[in-house]
Amino acid sequence: MGKGEQTRGAILERAWALASQLGLEGLTIGRLAEELDLSKSGLFAHFQSKEGLQVQTLERAAEHFAESVAKPALAAPRGEPRLRAIFENWLRWAQMAPQPGGCIFVAAATELDDRPGAARDVLVKLQKEWLAFLAGCVRLAVQEGHFHRGVDPEQFAFDLYGVALVWHFSTRLLRDRKAGVRAHRAFDALLAAARARA
Amino acid sequence: MGKGEQTRGAILERAWALASQLGLEGLTIGRLAEELDLSKSGLFAHFQSKEGLQVQTLERAAEHFAESVAKPALAAPRGEPRLRAIFENWLRWAQMAPQPGGCIFVAAATELDDRPGAARDVLVKLQKEWLAFLAGCVRLAVQEGHFHRGVDPEQFAFDLYGVALVWHFSTRLLRDRKAGVRAHRAFDALLAAARARA
Repeated sequence: MGKGEQTRGAILERAWALASQLGLEGLTIGRLAEELDLSKSGLFAHFQSKEGLQVQTLERAAEHFAESVAKPALAAPRGEPRLRAIFENWLRWAQMAPQPGGCIFVAAATELDDRPGAARDVLVKLQKEWLAFLAGCVRLAVQEGHFHRGVDPEQFAFDLYGVALVWHFSTRLLRDRKAGVRAHRAFDALLAAARARA
Repeated sequence: MGKGEQTRGAILERAWALASQLGLEGLTIGRLAEELDLSKSGLFAHFQSKEGLQVQTLERAAEHFAESVAKPALAAPRGEPRLRAIFENWLRWAQMAPQPGGCIFVAAATELDDRPGAARDVLVKLQKEWLAFLAGCVRLAVQEGHFHRGVDPEQFAFDLYGVALVWHFSTRLLRDRKAGVRAHRAFDALLAAARARA
């Protein structure tokens, strides 16, 4: 990794942390320049526009998500064990990364849902890829005989996403100390309903 | 309702619509004054501060939520029928009210989760009341014999909230045309797991 790449990486980490607190709309090139004590024109040269900065920040966060949530779970055996590993990593995600304001994707989803543009397009693409990855892991659980053949992988991915969202909401907004227990119970109920009868 | 109340109501409807698009942080007294073609000083007299405006906007939205989601469901028989009515009203909520940018509570949850203050306090109170109301409806379903005695009402409310969140995410961000079908399947699975064996 060259020096240019390192600098770009460091800038995007800071942009990501800021976006998690101020939202992607609050992440302006001017504000980021102030935080980093860099010139605004230098940052403009890097990102061209606020939207360019938003897009690259989302992509940087997605790389980290893949590295910290998806990739380590691939070490777990296919099927239910891998889904469990994904779930545990996913719950830890908001704490693992430089996002003091919570998961950037959750925040961006409500910000960008009514704002057409390149940032929205990237976010939608990333979320669809994640749902497809989850559905693929469910398909493997059916193939392995852990889940019964009637399980709908896309429905399971949708349900699992709901658990992750309500967990994020309960821990971050409500500061509910039972959120972890509740999220695990919800996940266990999904597994129980999907599991092949012995 | 006096003229003053009507004016206040109309101002808060507009504030709510704006907040759903720009976020609560984007809802400034200056911006609202511009939208309404009113003087900034007049609005300041009404709301005292940006936070006062945020708080009253959230409270106004909560009154509407109670009127359009909770109250009509009370006409349905206690237990499972009432929970079904709540669920259907809840899914329609984001379309029913003047919130072109989606549910104000979902947006505010990610905005305010790391911002201590009066607006956060009001939002947390409203969300806890809603979860408690849901849990109360589940308790009635147990009393009516629709659900078995082992059902945990707070867990059911948590799970149901997750379905509502992933539905909002799937319709608004992903524009997934299957979101309605998936949300209903998720809800039916919750009911099936809770139902008393005949």
